[in-house]
Amino acid sequence: MSTKIPLVQYLFRRLRQNGVHTMFGVPGDFTLKALDHLKPCGIKWIGNCNELNAGYAADGYARVNGLGALFTTYGVGELSAMNAVAGSYAEGVPVIHIVGLPQRSLMKQRAIVHHTLGDGRNTIFEEMSVHLLKNGSMIDQEKTAIEHIDSAIRNALYNSRPSYIALPCDMFAKEVLANPLQKAVETKELNGNGAEGHSVANRLIEMISTAKQPLILVDRSGGIDIMRTNIDDFVRHTGIPTLTMPSGASMIDHTTPNYFGVHGGMVGQTDTSDYVAAADLVLAFGTMFSDTQTLGWKIVPSASKTVKFSNNCISFPEDSATSTKINLRTLLPVLTQKLDPTRLAKPDTSSLGNFRTIKPPEVSDHNAPLNQTSLYLHLNSYLRPHDTILLGNATPILGGRDFILPDTSCRVIASGMWFSIGHMLPAALGAALAQQRSPDTLPDHGRAVLFDGDGSFQVTAQELSTIIHQRLNVTIFIINNDGYAYERLIHGLNESYNDIASWDYLSLPAAFGAAKALKAAKDAGEVYSIDTIRLETQGDLEAFLKDERFDNGHSGRGARGLKMVDIKVGRTDVPKKFRAVFESAGQNL
Amino acid sequence: MSTKIPLVQYLFRRLRQNGVHTMFGVPGDFTLKALDHLKPCGIKWIGNCNELNAGYAADGYARVNGLGALFTTYGVGELSAMNAVAGSYAEGVPVIHIVGLPQRSLMKQRAIVHHTLGDGRNTIFEEMSVHLLKNGSMIDQEKTAIEHIDSAIRNALYNSRPSYIALPCDMFAKEVLANPLQKAVETKELNGNGAEGHSVANRLIEMISTAKQPLILVDRSGGIDIMRTNIDDFVRHTGIPTLTMPSGASMIDHTTPNYFGVHGGMVGQTDTSDYVAAADLVLAFGTMFSDTQTLGWKIVPSASKTVKFSNNCISFPEDSATSTKINLRTLLPVLTQKLDPTRLAKPDTSSLGNFRTIKPPEVSDHNAPLNQTSLYLHLNSYLRPHDTILLGNATPILGGRDFILPDTSCRVIASGMWFSIGHMLPAALGAALAQQRSPDTLPDHGRAVLFDGDGSFQVTAQELSTIIHQRLNVTIFIINNDGYAYERLIHGLNESYNDIASWDYLSLPAAFGAAKALKAAKDAGEVYSIDTIRLETQGDLEAFLKDERFDNGHSGRGARGLKMVDIKVGRTDVPKKFRAVFESAGQNL
Repeated sequence: MSTKIPLVQYLFRRLRQNGVHTMFGVPGDFTLKALDHLKPCGIKWIGNCNELNAGYAADGYARVNGLGALFTTYGVGELSAMNAVAGSYAEGVPVIHIVGLPQRSLMKQRAIVHHTLGDGRNTIFEEMSVHLLKNGSMIDQEKTAIEHIDSAIRNALYNSRPSYIALPCDMFAKEVLANPLQKAVETKELNGNGAEGHSVANRLIEMISTAKQPLILVDRSGGIDIMRTNIDDFVRHTGIPTLTMPSGASMIDHTTPNYFGVHGGMVGQTDTSDYVAAADLVLAFGTMFSDTQTLGWKIVPSASKTVKFSNNCISFPEDSATSTKINLRTLLPVLTQKLDPTRLAKPDTSSLGNFRTIKPPEVSDHNAPLNQTSLYLHLNSYLRPHDTILLGNATPILGGRDFILPDTSCRVIASGMWFSIGHMLPAALGAALAQQRSPDTLPDHGRAVLFDGDGSFQVTAQELSTIIHQRLNVTIFIINNDGYAYERLIHGLNESYNDIASWDYLSLPAAFGAAKALKAAKDAGEVYSIDTIRLETQGDLEAFLKDERFDNGHSGRGARGLKMVDIKVGRTDVPKKFRAVFESAGQNL
Repeated sequence: MSTKIPLVQYLFRRLRQNGVHTMFGVPGDFTLKALDHLKPCGIKWIGNCNELNAGYAADGYARVNGLGALFTTYGVGELSAMNAVAGSYAEGVPVIHIVGLPQRSLMKQRAIVHHTLGDGRNTIFEEMSVHLLKNGSMIDQEKTAIEHIDSAIRNALYNSRPSYIALPCDMFAKEVLANPLQKAVETKELNGNGAEGHSVANRLIEMISTAKQPLILVDRSGGIDIMRTNIDDFVRHTGIPTLTMPSGASMIDHTTPNYFGVHGGMVGQTDTSDYVAAADLVLAFGTMFSDTQTLGWKIVPSASKTVKFSNNCISFPEDSATSTKINLRTLLPVLTQKLDPTRLAKPDTSSLGNFRTIKPPEVSDHNAPLNQTSLYLHLNSYLRPHDTILLGNATPILGGRDFILPDTSCRVIASGMWFSIGHMLPAALGAALAQQRSPDTLPDHGRAVLFDGDGSFQVTAQELSTIIHQRLNVTIFIINNDGYAYERLIHGLNESYNDIASWDYLSLPAAFGAAKALKAAKDAGEVYSIDTIRLETQGDLEAFLKDERFDNGHSGRGARGLKMVDIKVGRTDVPKKFRAVFESAGQNL
């Protein structure tokens, strides 16, 4: 068969085949004619308020869905998205960034087209993205176009990193053969039988079997995120004591008996430092050992004991700088099958405590102001199965790291490397859209639950209007402390540069189109509500946790909708145990 | 004397010497300790909601002030500002982009610091910015630091382009000699005596004297913006017929008799195409001949007749690809002095009409809906001396290009090359702050008057809260047409990808902290008000133009404050004469 289809349809169908049902972006002259082809290919367009937000939304979508896509216009659009795409790279999230360019002839002539620098350097934006991502290209020839598209998607999936596809607008409608679509994008390294990994498997089995205090440490980077089931099986079967990094907090089912919570060192729910330091073998999956989540690298396990895994490579302690290609998806089941748990060491884990039994302190004074030392412990009871919990890069990423999740259907999205403020509100939009389609989410009941700081929320605030416009099931907790408390504690406690404008957050839904969205829901016969509440005291919090309007979980009491909770805390309030961390961060600047 | 000061104070004092009184940005770990030094150096910190907005604000500030400054944090911050800084480059606006970096030792070790990509490529963001701007560097040695700082500022002023300064945070407090500050930053090419330009002057005088139909065409790029007085003198003295490009609409005093308005070709107030085509000599100052403002290059004057000027170089028609260094600031007065206007050709300019006499159509039906074909003609009467008028990259940049300005104290800020939506709201913040200090602005009465589209406004909307927080004198007209009308007309007239969420724009001030700002004004004994109004009909517009709350010009009737005007127009309403332009733009995609 030699059916032909427009090139841009080839791209969109390939994305659809690989699970992309939703694309994010902002339209521009150089993308408009491509957007016409989305609907015929079964992809829904979500127009964001700006490209940074679109990039974050695509990142959030990809974290739930396995692959995301972002479509921006040349120059102005793609540069605005750069921070978000770089973040996806830094944290190992596969997003396809498509950019619509001026016609090839104008690119070649170095024409003074709008959105160029005006100096003829018309390929500079592509150069910047390719330098950043080490991947991608401009697709300017029909005969190699399909190969370029397939390789961009393959690389994104294989490396779990973003790919860049630049498409001059005169290429959109060029006819290409459709039949390559009949074969899936070749990612043999991901789907192979793992034969090449047998010697690696044997070596690992030997190491694990002889270890006296083995430890599994799980994070979500390096393509590990999509292997939760395999890793969970491995953890359960072997019984090896397991911790997660803060950014990987939902990687292991919290009911697994040999899972001991987040490795927070001396700021953990129990101090994990000594146990990790004493381990003689650490199996580290997709770990992001940034200073921020390792107390300035103080609690990183020694490289001389650590085996590091990503989805496609492994490095051994003897030579931690060299990595060997593997296929973790086939390697892990081999390990799970071959390891006999009865013959593995049973180290004493009593020092790791039991994070599941930690309860919020009794509230004695109902008029006492709220504080973040106990807030998140109380909020544990708000969480429901099928929630996607997003922790903003502000105090919530500290306070929320120790949430106790109801079950494995919950997911936590939190930075481990990039930590860009403003990331998580648009990511909640993306996650909520991905959840709508996720097979393990109850229709209408999977919530995106965002905990954000006020300063962080302001960065990308307008994307709340897209959440409302799309009538998504989202709860937003805003920790309202009148500024950048995270920064205040590091340096400049009372300096005005850490102040922000005082917003009335609960008025935002009305300004951002609530009335129209509610009317549209009613016209469509949908149940959708918008509820807001301000919490200032312990008593307020208690009442909130019983308020039917806000409990929209499985009990069926609450209704699907947007819930906004404005939580007033003191200007310098942070979870108590982190005070020393901030202080030391400030000293090291 | 060998007094020493912290390096970052050297930088801030140099900026202050060069007129920077205000710096924009968002604080971050790697900048905090530098921010402490701003106040002692006499620079006010304006914390923006995000870095893109900060970049646009610095751009707007620089367009009024002559130099602007932006301070962001490593990675996440600087990348978010990239689009704005690239725009300043494309349009020739001098902005110093300072970035705070991790300590030098961590940079060198390729440490896995937060805000890095996690792969050791810790200098990549610097590489991207330097590639983009062809200028700037990381300052990592004390002995060359001063030289680097001075050269970054010198290059910015000389080339009228942004400079990039990356400062590892352990460099902030390093002590450097203060005495170089006693000598101004050397920009001899800008301040020299122009002796080297005499042969150029003679050549130009010969060309101008023998031309039969000479024309002056003025825009604002290439450092021309700050030479308005010199150019105006030249235009007035020689009497040579003069037009401006749309983005240079305020470069010439609108009362100058030989100024004939904006060169819009067939979409001009009068059709300027034939006159420009017939000119045998075009003196083009700082022109941005992008497709968008030249009807797809149709109305660009022939290169074989055009002399192009920037502040520091000239190119002649005989060899338009080669440019010769000049100092326009000294060259222009020489030309003005040596040219005898009585001996210059007096071409017939009757075809250029008189844009000053164009009146809005009589309103017969007061209930008729508003439309952008007549709207801007009516709004001419709203403009006051000392206004800075900002045209958003949406339909207002078309409709507003032919405003008739009361006098030379007015300035129009409009894109000629970059055309990034969302640019102008933060730019209005920057312009309003620069105006507060501008010697030719009446205290409290210089307004920033923004005309923006709804889609464009949404991109950077949260920066309205900074305008409110700073209690600035700003009027915002939002052309509310439920989407990207500019794009609808190009392609996808009824496609949902050109839709946006429906906001209630006039509720935004309340959500963005109006109550607190009004209280703060009252406590400070300041006059400040926030007024909003929605206009739907011709009658509404008429009443608005007489409403004392909104006329805060010289009459003293209105009060200083924020005014928001929500102007409802049809979804596909655009100024009538531009319909053909959109159509042709769509066909060329």
